[in-house]
Amino acid sequence: MSQFNNVSVVKQANVYFDGKVTSRTVLFPDGTRKTLGIMLPGDYEFGTDKREVMEILAGELTVLLPGQDQWLQISGTGEFEVPANAKFKLQVKAATDYCCSYLD
Amino acid sequence: MSQFNNVSVVKQANVYFDGKVTSRTVLFPDGTRKTLGIMLPGDYEFGTDKREVMEILAGELTVLLPGQDQWLQISGTGEFEVPANAKFKLQVKAATDYCCSYLD
Repeated sequence: MSQFNNVSVVKQANVYFDGKVTSRTVLFPDGTRKTLGIMLPGDYEFGTDKREVMEILAGELTVLLPGQDQWLQISGTGEFEVPANAKFKLQVKAATDYCCSYLD
Repeated sequence: MSQFNNVSVVKQANVYFDGKVTSRTVLFPDGTRKTLGIMLPGDYEFGTDKREVMEILAGELTVLLPGQDQWLQISGTGEFEVPANAKFKLQVKAATDYCCSYLD
């Protein structure tokens, strides 16, 4: 059972798209931040501020990364990176569990 | 911004009802456990193992506690307690953010 130790967790959820996408913020002792989230089926567009690494822990979705014309398919687990200040699209087919890391 | 410090967080989500109810487990240094979760609109029945205190951080729902015949209404924030080894029903009207504490 993978877990993050010696962290802080913000109690209140981050809620997007009427609750179809939600996450909790985890703060690490080194000052970095991750979110642990759930996306329910739907089509979404997100914008990044920092560079992000999205680790898919479980789920089924396709991803259109910025500057690409081909959708990346993930079924089960997977990972993709999104540059800072960019937009990306997701088509979520089944409830998807993710961990997003925000990088400098 | 209320947060839990010096805790562990289990990376993988707890997923119920096709993802309409999900939570993350937070483990405290004293050995106690809470879950931070989201419930989307729907009718649910849950069973307890330990005694639980459910703190509603945001949302809109009604609750039928064991042995009661009247539904408790919560809009915004609220709290209710459920005995160990009991069943309770929820009618969730809007995406609801909660913190559940498991007590001995």
